[in-house]
Amino acid sequence: MSTRLRIALDAMGGDHAPDMVVDGADIARERCPNVDFLFVGDEQRINALLDARPALKAISQVRHTADVVAMDAKPSVALRSGRGSSMRLAIDAVASGEAASVVSAGNTGALMAMAKFVLKTLPGIDRPAIASMLPTMRGDCVMLDLGANLECDADNLVQFAVLGTVFAQTVLGLLEPTIGLLNVGSEEQKGHEAIRTAASALRATPLARNFHGFVEGTDIAAGTVDVVVTDGFTGNVALKTAEGTGKLFGEFLRRTFQSSLLAKLGYLLARTAFNKLRQRMDPRRYNGAMFLGLQGVCVKSHGGTDGLGFANAICVAVDLVQHGFNEKIRKELALLQESLQAASAAASGSDPQAVAQ
Amino acid sequence: MSTRLRIALDAMGGDHAPDMVVDGADIARERCPNVDFLFVGDEQRINALLDARPALKAISQVRHTADVVAMDAKPSVALRSGRGSSMRLAIDAVASGEAASVVSAGNTGALMAMAKFVLKTLPGIDRPAIASMLPTMRGDCVMLDLGANLECDADNLVQFAVLGTVFAQTVLGLLEPTIGLLNVGSEEQKGHEAIRTAASALRATPLARNFHGFVEGTDIAAGTVDVVVTDGFTGNVALKTAEGTGKLFGEFLRRTFQSSLLAKLGYLLARTAFNKLRQRMDPRRYNGAMFLGLQGVCVKSHGGTDGLGFANAICVAVDLVQHGFNEKIRKELALLQESLQAASAAASGSDPQAVAQ
Repeated sequence: MSTRLRIALDAMGGDHAPDMVVDGADIARERCPNVDFLFVGDEQRINALLDARPALKAISQVRHTADVVAMDAKPSVALRSGRGSSMRLAIDAVASGEAASVVSAGNTGALMAMAKFVLKTLPGIDRPAIASMLPTMRGDCVMLDLGANLECDADNLVQFAVLGTVFAQTVLGLLEPTIGLLNVGSEEQKGHEAIRTAASALRATPLARNFHGFVEGTDIAAGTVDVVVTDGFTGNVALKTAEGTGKLFGEFLRRTFQSSLLAKLGYLLARTAFNKLRQRMDPRRYNGAMFLGLQGVCVKSHGGTDGLGFANAICVAVDLVQHGFNEKIRKELALLQESLQAASAAASGSDPQAVAQ
Repeated sequence: MSTRLRIALDAMGGDHAPDMVVDGADIARERCPNVDFLFVGDEQRINALLDARPALKAISQVRHTADVVAMDAKPSVALRSGRGSSMRLAIDAVASGEAASVVSAGNTGALMAMAKFVLKTLPGIDRPAIASMLPTMRGDCVMLDLGANLECDADNLVQFAVLGTVFAQTVLGLLEPTIGLLNVGSEEQKGHEAIRTAASALRATPLARNFHGFVEGTDIAAGTVDVVVTDGFTGNVALKTAEGTGKLFGEFLRRTFQSSLLAKLGYLLARTAFNKLRQRMDPRRYNGAMFLGLQGVCVKSHGGTDGLGFANAICVAVDLVQHGFNEKIRKELALLQESLQAASAAASGSDPQAVAQ
């Protein structure tokens, strides 16, 4: 008998909840055969949706609560007064071991605050980060932080590099993912202090061999590195700028194909090829921002997504659990601590290696 | 007799200088009939290029120097030891009143340091900013700062809003350009302190009526506002991320059209329409980053551009001079100072209006 993996779902989070949550679970069910679900939210509405999906119903459990975190609630308020909310109870299910991970399309700030409070950060991680995958010329890359920490010091950035590396190994399947620190230029003297200190610090860790140095905004889509590390303010702006530019380009493409009879005809011929491109660039493919650095797997789906997008977020959560993401993080962090201690000991003249000999 | 406008050109700056500088001037000459040029650089090479272009030669003067600022020189080094460089002498020509503006495709940091040192900032401006135009769903917008100031306080951001507004009025021809502060969310409590203070400060100025509030990365390409204000680190990353995403999309488009025989045929039919799109998105159309806030007009061309791109940078410089950009800035800054003083006097209970009555 194979062990089944239980995923807790905040059934009430997101613009089209609970419908798209149940839809998403139904799609994910077919892709990940060993998964079952714990839906948290309005029992009556969820059950009505499950009744129409017997195969899903058979692997689902529902936990009722009428309380929901509002999409525009302040994180601090949600944390204080949302103890009975669908979001909070779904996170609690991970903390208690009932579920292996949690997926929510609700309020990002509230989810981060609750997840951090309930699950706590991993040893060696000061602050969790939000990470996501992005399309590049050379496959996908991962970028973090995307908004959990607006201001970051050098230590935070080094920790993000560890988190991002293990994520790229686990989800992108890369053996030795390369790392870049997002900056305004690639030269060593560029950028502000935190980023330059982080670059020196990274060179003294086991990650040094895969550390590419500074990268610029153009390098993200160029796929220059597999892991793009940055503070949450810059990362959030960069991610959304890329999204906006993609939409602009898509709109210009649409207008171009409609601008003349010949162009319309051209579209008819190239349609199959363009459908493939559309699939490749589908934002739903990149749905699922991971909260990394917590003692538990928590995935945030885009609030406006549909069932297909939500299913992708669920599958990312399943991937992270099945590949032992957090166990790998723990190991890498232990190695990092060792090397940092060795470096600082060496710097102060008491090299532990030398003493041992 | 109409007055002619003289533009000083750093003939040695950029990857393909001096050829593309002379090419660019030749293209700009046809577009802007009342302009003549002062080329600064290697006399022999420039004259050889001018000899082949008699019409350009007739409106050009050459100032010789063998000294060139290296593309990778540190700004501080260039400032100290580049006093005889083509870049510096071209800026000097603006300071002395010989030229109305300067255009260079050389080292950005060195150009900013020299321009600031030689031309000085306008009264009321603490730091100059780099601005550029970007394509959006609703025409072009202007974004600043793009890298001159990695860290900015609230005062800097408010001054950038003034600079950007007058730029949008002058170059984009908008009567009442709307302003947005780039942030990680549109809600009032979002973002770090400098940006929130800047938002409150802007609401107390004459710019308040056009101040849209916070905008996100997606809003840049959406064209939500005409002027996007941000610090130089974020702005630089956002601009380059948009550039990179545009390139990625272009590459995917190319691959899509080549992916099958039908798609290739489709491209042949839609080619005319796509050539228009290509022209619309041509990075050379957006060449010319303006250094705003200086007592003189200084335009930075992309280092890797060709003659057409350089001509666009020249035309932006001409536009700024002909529309009295700096005079407008002076007026707006005076109004801003007045309203800020009135606001602070009102806040301290000694309303000058009330006293006067």
